[in-house]
This record gives sequence, structure tokens and C-alpha cells, in this order.
Amino acid sequence: MVRGKILSLRYGILGTGALGGFYGAKLQKVGLDVHFLVRSDYQHLTEHGLVIESVDGDFTLPQVNVYPDVEKMPRCDVVIIAMKTTQNYQLPQMLPIVLKDDGVVVVLQNGLGIEEEIGKIVACNTSHPIIGGLSFLTANKIAPGHIRHLSYKNIILGGFTANYQTMEITSRMQKIANDFENAGIPTELTEDLLLARWKKLVWNIPYNGLSVVLNASTAELMGDIYTRQLVENIMNEVVLAAKACSREIPKNFVQLMLGNTAKMPSYRTSMKIDFDEHRPLEVEAIFGNPLRIATALSSDLSLHFPLITCLYQQLKFLDKKNRHLV
Amino acid sequence: MVRGKILSLRYGILGTGALGGFYGAKLQKVGLDVHFLVRSDYQHLTEHGLVIESVDGDFTLPQVNVYPDVEKMPRCDVVIIAMKTTQNYQLPQMLPIVLKDDGVVVVLQNGLGIEEEIGKIVACNTSHPIIGGLSFLTANKIAPGHIRHLSYKNIILGGFTANYQTMEITSRMQKIANDFENAGIPTELTEDLLLARWKKLVWNIPYNGLSVVLNASTAELMGDIYTRQLVENIMNEVVLAAKACSREIPKNFVQLMLGNTAKMPSYRTSMKIDFDEHRPLEVEAIFGNPLRIATALSSDLSLHFPLITCLYQQLKFLDKKNRHLV
Repeated sequence: MVRGKILSLRYGILGTGALGGFYGAKLQKVGLDVHFLVRSDYQHLTEHGLVIESVDGDFTLPQVNVYPDVEKMPRCDVVIIAMKTTQNYQLPQMLPIVLKDDGVVVVLQNGLGIEEEIGKIVACNTSHPIIGGLSFLTANKIAPGHIRHLSYKNIILGGFTANYQTMEITSRMQKIANDFENAGIPTELTEDLLLARWKKLVWNIPYNGLSVVLNASTAELMGDIYTRQLVENIMNEVVLAAKACSREIPKNFVQLMLGNTAKMPSYRTSMKIDFDEHRPLEVEAIFGNPLRIATALSSDLSLHFPLITCLYQQLKFLDKKNRHLV
Repeated sequence: MVRGKILSLRYGILGTGALGGFYGAKLQKVGLDVHFLVRSDYQHLTEHGLVIESVDGDFTLPQVNVYPDVEKMPRCDVVIIAMKTTQNYQLPQMLPIVLKDDGVVVVLQNGLGIEEEIGKIVACNTSHPIIGGLSFLTANKIAPGHIRHLSYKNIILGGFTANYQTMEITSRMQKIANDFENAGIPTELTEDLLLARWKKLVWNIPYNGLSVVLNASTAELMGDIYTRQLVENIMNEVVLAAKACSREIPKNFVQLMLGNTAKMPSYRTSMKIDFDEHRPLEVEAIFGNPLRIATALSSDLSLHFPLITCLYQQLKFLDKKNRHLV
């Protein structure tokens, strides 16, 4: 080992669905050392590897390092959490095993407050942050080991301290971002991922919520004057909740999101897909945590976010009923 | 005709579902002159009359005066509107034909603002009011001409002036109430039917709305901690809307309604039955009119009733989609 040589980072991917499979494959394709935790498709991936069908060009990885559980994985410098937040209850068992002592966690999940929960599992501080990540990937797993990438693939990364404060960009974050960029994944570094997370919630809260509650596509929600107005009312409430957390979302952002969504092809949201598949919904990460965090920080007690609360309650009911737990 | 003898009133019933069929049959059974407008079951009722299966005792009326349209009906002293509010668009054609010049209309429908709409069709004033009526009937039409009465049957009646102000009890209202009482229908007269209507909305808005949006029975809504809280939040908002209309609903009323509903057998709301049968929903009478009336009268502009608005928008979307008009 030559002093000063920048060592290559070893990546662990927890969750090999569309998101973990796509990003992990992109990293491996440029020669990085990648290790996948795989649940249901373990046997298939061992035999056939990963097939990526992508707008950027299709490719196949006949051999991938896959593991049925973390006990068998090598310890990694960077552990990317790419499973649904509903599986995060497994992380206290997983992370201490798979993460190197000086390793970092990249939380590539939706919603709010997850980095804080993970900060309670792994040691972190300002020189050793939890890295939060927002992915704008449009991809589906269409068969075991077979991922179809439709559009967008960019990522925003930002660091968090143990007490869930955003922080400046570290050299390690820069190195990870370089790896992603080299792998063809446009990656932005930010000193305030919370603002980015709230902006994504402006879209995710109304469309994910209403798509499940009303059994509707984005096109149906935008094509009806009543639900279009409801989407806008909910977006405005998310902007207020962000403001309670000292995050200012620009005034024109709501109209921009509405306009973009009205123009895009009709879309079945990820929460609707989970619902249709009778999988648990990410209600706490996308609705519950933002509500609790914004409410706790609201100095104005009249701010109580009635629409987000209503969606949260409706989804909690439907999620339970949908999984036959009633 | 002996001077001073009180003439018997002739009753016309518009709509012979569970409600119109039950009350009309009760009136006819004690010898009153009753005439039914019947749509789909006309032929059946002509041949077989009405069968009432009731907790108070079953009875049959082999012969009833039924008409397929108002043109063939005699003009009536009292016209009871017993159809769904979604059919009220037919009233401007019907009422001038079937109502005597000095006749009165009794609006036995759910929701708010209906008497005002009817006041624009028929002449009315303080000595000649529109009579609003709230029915607490639990009954279903189980087959053509066959009604099953399960519990409750009482009615509250109150007068409205042409400009939708409540008013004192007139002798004609008293006479109609006497006819109902003689027919075994407990009937209360009130000088403020609006308060009674708002109190009924405290129940109807959350349970009718959520039963459709969440595909749920009252027992399911009360058995889940999230929807139980949502029901309570919506009820509190209806109390606020009533207050904007200067109607004070007592503080303990919300808890009383929650407690009663939790105790009663699981119930499929009338709006859920309409939805399951792909019939139009009474969204405007139960949600739209109360919202518009309360908003117009809100001196406090911060009162905007977000939960009732949200339910209204969700139901408008589902109602349209459910009738395949999308």
C-alpha cells in the first residue's frame, strides 16, 4: 500500500430492489467493489447476476457478490441503505455487522427522520456523519435480477450529525460523490439535505397519499378539478410544515410541481405499487415523521397540519386493512 | 262540509324508497289520503302494494295510490320530498304540478340548504313556510315494495322562510305533526331546524364520508385508533362550521356521538350503500352546501374547514369515477 494513495471504497448495498440493484450495478460496472444483500432473489442472482435495461444503454453483470444475510458479507466502508423504510427495524442487527468501524452509512430512502434513527445505531459525529441521500430514480424491478430504468437517476447527498443537524460537506462525502459521478450517476452534494427532503415531500405527500386513498394515478388526480385543488392544498401545507422546520421552499415551487406532474405521463406512485402488492406502506417515513418533526418545532400552536394528519390517519387505516391485520 | 271541521290533508310522497315507502304506508294505514310517486317499482306496487316488515309489527297495504309521474297525481296539501337530494333537479318540473296553490312542502332529506333551493320553486312566506324535516329512520328497501324497518323512526320538523331563516311553529306544521303522531311516528316540532340539521351533520359528515373513502363500516372506523381520531377531528370541525352559522352544539355532543356509534352494531352508511350500488352520492347536500354556507358566514377568515373540504374533494372524485363518468 502506497502512502497517500486513495484507497478504493468497498460498497455494501442493503436491499437489492430497483434502487439498490440499479445503483449497485452502476458502481460495479465501473470496477468498484460492491456487495449486495439480497433477500427473495438470492438464488436467481447467484446463478444469473443482474440485468439492467436502461434508457442509458442496457448492460448485464453475470457475476455479482450477493449474500442472503449480513453475517456472510465483508465489512464495508460505505453501506447504502436501499431497502424500504418499513424494513428499517432490521438495521440495529445489520449495521454493526456490515459496517467498518470507520465506515459511513448512506441512507438512500424517502421521507424524513431516518438519519436520526440510524444515528442511534452507529457512532457518528461531525467528522463522521450519517449521509442522507435523495434519489430521483425512475426504475422498476420487472423480474428477479431484472431492472428497468425509465428516466432520471440523479442523487443528492448531505451529511447529518448525531443530533440530526445538517452539516458541511466532508472529504469522504466528496469521495463517495466522485465514485457515483464516475459510475454515471449525477450526484449533487448539499449542506442542507433537509431542504431537499422537504421539497421532495411536497410531491410525495399528496401524490403517494392520494394515489392509495383514492386508487388513482397521477393523471387522474390532475384531471379532476377537485383532486387537483386538494393536491395543491396539501402541497401548501407541506410548505408550511417545512417552514416550521426553518426550511423556506420558494413560492413558485408548488405551481412548478403541479405543472410538471400534469405534463408527465400518468404514473403509479411507489406507495400505490406497494399497496397493490399488499406490502407495508412507508407511512411513518413519509407522513408520520414529517408531521411529528414539524409539530414539535411549531412555535405557532395554531399550525397543526390538518391535511397531512388526515392523510396519515387514512393511510394507517388502509395499510393495516390491506395487510389483513384487522 | 261543516264549518269549523278540520279537513283531512292529502299527502303526496315523492320517492318511494325505504323512507317514502315507510312513512307513506304509516300515514295510509291510519286512514289518511296518501299518493305515491313511484319510479322503478311502479308495476310491482300496482299489483302487490306495500309490505312493511317492522320492529313495531309487520303490515301490508295491498292497495296503494301509485303514479309513474306527477302529471297523473292529484294535487296535494302536503308534498313530502322523500327522494335522494341527487334527484332534486327534477323538482322544478314536479312541484308546481303536484302541490296545491296553498299546499306545503316537507323536505325529508339529509344535508343543508335544500329548503332554500325549494323556496325558489314554490311560493313561501312566514305564514306559508317550507317545512324542513329530519328523519332518524333505520330502514332498507329489501325488494320492490318490501321495506324492512329496523329501529328509530322519529322525525323533527321546522319551518323556513323564503330567505332560509328558521321560524316559529305554525298551525299547519302542528296539524302535520299531529297526523304523523297519530300514524305512530314520533314527531318533534322545532323553531330551529338548522341546529338539528347541523347536529345530524356532526354524524353524517365523518361517517358517510369516510365509509366511502376508506371502504369501511362504522365498526371498522371506530376500531382503529387513527380513524377514530380522524372521525373526532372531523366532528370538531363540523361543530366549528355550525358555530360560524351561529348554531352552538353542546361541548359533550361529539363525545356522545362517538360513544353511541362505538356501541351500536356495525353499520353501512347510506352513502356507502349508494356508492356500492353505483348511484350518485349526496355530496352537495351533505358536504358542499354546509361548506359553502359556513364559509360565507365565517367572519373569521382563518376558518376554512380543511377536513370537510378534503372529504368533499375526495368524494367528488370518487363519485364521478364510480359512475364511470371519467
